Amino acid sequence: MEEVQHAVREADPPQASTIAIPPAARPGDPIEAVDTPSLILDLDAFEDNLRTMQVLAERHGVALRPHAKAHKCPEIAIRQVALGASGICCQKVSEAVPFVAAGVRDVLISNEVIGAPKLALLARLARQAHMSVCVDNVRAVEALSSMMVEYEATVNVLVDIDVGQKRCGVQTPEEAVSLARLVQKLPNISFVGVQAYHGGLQHKRSLDQRQKAADKTVRAIRGYLDAFARAQIECPVVSGGGTGTAAFDVASQVYTEIQAGTYAFMDTDYAAIDWGDALAFRHSLYLLGTVMSTPTPERAVVDLGLKSTSAESGAPRIADHPDLRCVAVHDEHCILLAGSRRSRPEVGTQLRLIPGHCDPTFNLHDCIVAVRGQHVEALWPISARGLSR
Amino acid sequence: MEEVQHAVREADPPQASTIAIPPAARPGDPIEAVDTPSLILDLDAFEDNLRTMQVLAERHGVALRPHAKAHKCPEIAIRQVALGASGICCQKVSEAVPFVAAGVRDVLISNEVIGAPKLALLARLARQAHMSVCVDNVRAVEALSSMMVEYEATVNVLVDIDVGQKRCGVQTPEEAVSLARLVQKLPNISFVGVQAYHGGLQHKRSLDQRQKAADKTVRAIRGYLDAFARAQIECPVVSGGGTGTAAFDVASQVYTEIQAGTYAFMDTDYAAIDWGDALAFRHSLYLLGTVMSTPTPERAVVDLGLKSTSAESGAPRIADHPDLRCVAVHDEHCILLAGSRRSRPEVGTQLRLIPGHCDPTFNLHDCIVAVRGQHVEALWPISARGLSR
Repeated sequence: MEEVQHAVREADPPQASTIAIPPAARPGDPIEAVDTPSLILDLDAFEDNLRTMQVLAERHGVALRPHAKAHKCPEIAIRQVALGASGICCQKVSEAVPFVAAGVRDVLISNEVIGAPKLALLARLARQAHMSVCVDNVRAVEALSSMMVEYEATVNVLVDIDVGQKRCGVQTPEEAVSLARLVQKLPNISFVGVQAYHGGLQHKRSLDQRQKAADKTVRAIRGYLDAFARAQIECPVVSGGGTGTAAFDVASQVYTEIQAGTYAFMDTDYAAIDWGDALAFRHSLYLLGTVMSTPTPERAVVDLGLKSTSAESGAPRIADHPDLRCVAVHDEHCILLAGSRRSRPEVGTQLRLIPGHCDPTFNLHDCIVAVRGQHVEALWPISARGLSR
Repeated sequence: MEEVQHAVREADPPQASTIAIPPAARPGDPIEAVDTPSLILDLDAFEDNLRTMQVLAERHGVALRPHAKAHKCPEIAIRQVALGASGICCQKVSEAVPFVAAGVRDVLISNEVIGAPKLALLARLARQAHMSVCVDNVRAVEALSSMMVEYEATVNVLVDIDVGQKRCGVQTPEEAVSLARLVQKLPNISFVGVQAYHGGLQHKRSLDQRQKAADKTVRAIRGYLDAFARAQIECPVVSGGGTGTAAFDVASQVYTEIQAGTYAFMDTDYAAIDWGDALAFRHSLYLLGTVMSTPTPERAVVDLGLKSTSAESGAPRIADHPDLRCVAVHDEHCILLAGSRRSRPEVGTQLRLIPGHCDPTFNLHDCIVAVRGQHVEALWPISARGLSR
């Protein structure tokens, strides 16, 4: 080992100091100058998507409350609200903090909140913004009320009902009514309605399957609403729905607000379903990568992997290159196979990849490079990245 | 909608200001007080693992150069170096920045580096620390040398050889020799050896299969070393190996340094392989979660999902609860099924989960909560989290 050490090491370099890592891009840069891997947003497609969903919701008199867990980016949320969204959803209390700081005044935590640190943070947020939260448990409701009293804050409460998702949520209308009564009885919390989200049916492939599944969900919700009516409990809010079923949800006459998130971006998961003629959302979200190795005539390796794109629902798809296929996603590499030597890109080639699942992909990046046409318009911080408490 | 708005909204709250999110824990806290989800490190097990691998390498006169891509945490790297590691590996140039800033003086970028922004950053690092880098392409070698000349920096170069991984790396000994000659010819870069990493064989289940696969890799490496000898090119460094094959790698007489990373932490991937009697690493890395919903007698939902744990290689395993099984990992939830009503934990219960794959899991967290026994000892920033360029 002595010899090895000698061969490898030179004289000691000067004392280290922290080197600033330059930003991936600067406004005005051409796309080719963006350092990779980077998450990029095609603003024209993104703005089209925002308008399409907003118009759809308004046409049916239903509120759009986009889910900010999809993007975790306040710059995106304030554009959704400016276009007419009634507020946003967040999935975690800490996630809501940068959105409230950016001026979003109405946030539904579309999830159960358990534990004193989280309830205290929720109470502090509720003194600055209109906060709502979901419940499915008696003791959790009691803890929520106590903390709100302690902080002299108030919060709106939705009873979470399980309409087939098999995740959280009460299982029967009787439980829902009993929990709503408890909420009505306790101080500093107000019962306003139910959350009925069913993520599983968002990705059913055929339009017809999704329509049938959405109808079944609507029938389940009606069962709950009937129980509330019999118990003479007003239930003004029914929150739920998603990108895959939005066209049915807005027309269902049960939802008062839609929680869609992915519609603004799309991903390979959602691109794989049949959208019919009714609705069209465009891919606006890409990963920009660079070919870093071409070891064989058919193989190209791109400089991004699991640390830049989620892959639990499949490998990313290569945009604009139908002859290139991603066959493996390693921690920092995607392995591409070309159909022929001619179609294999050279080292240094920039490629756009469409992520498999947009939500966890946003959560890997500190900022998104917003692009208009062929140039960078802005860098938007993904301020809620990693805020999972 | 007018009525809904009225029911949900109260008077406008005071103007928002940014609320600071409290840290997940403070030194001295009992584990029960740690907010979730959090990544926790059992320091006793972690330190055992560091010593086990260091001793193994030293006994065979082989250098240990732990892979920092596994943890991205300078506090961990400086402990590895303090115990005797010869330096570290990083997979990306930007990833190396916080480690060099923390005082690590010898970093191998165990990967190809393509593009001017990355080469410029590498050159700046090379003026502060001993930097090495891998190459597998003629033009990349030329670009590397040019940039080092421009910055008046020098860098050591390893030719990356593909010994079965089918990712990057030259395909034949002739290519390797020709690339080494080019490196020797060009200014400010020095040929020091080869990188021969084969990730695929790390996870082969049986000890015997791994031994055979490792032997095959060693034979492939010898083919390259013979070609260098025939060409009269000195090749002092052979870098490669990993946690799964470490026991064979150190005894192989070809590797001069081992790039293992996961040995310090372990995960369900590595726990699933047969370790034989020779070597034992302990689980030191856990996700701390809280049960947030128990909607049915058998189902419990934990407050962490894909944004806190990687799941592309399987769901996390629940520690200390053999009767609890994770059946689904959503973006922010793990769905657990209990074998019986009795074994289903209550809302508020803290659980420790073992992640499926440690590298991408570290990359989701901003800090790790280092725990000694039942108390928090420190919070270590995962400073290279998200540094993927």
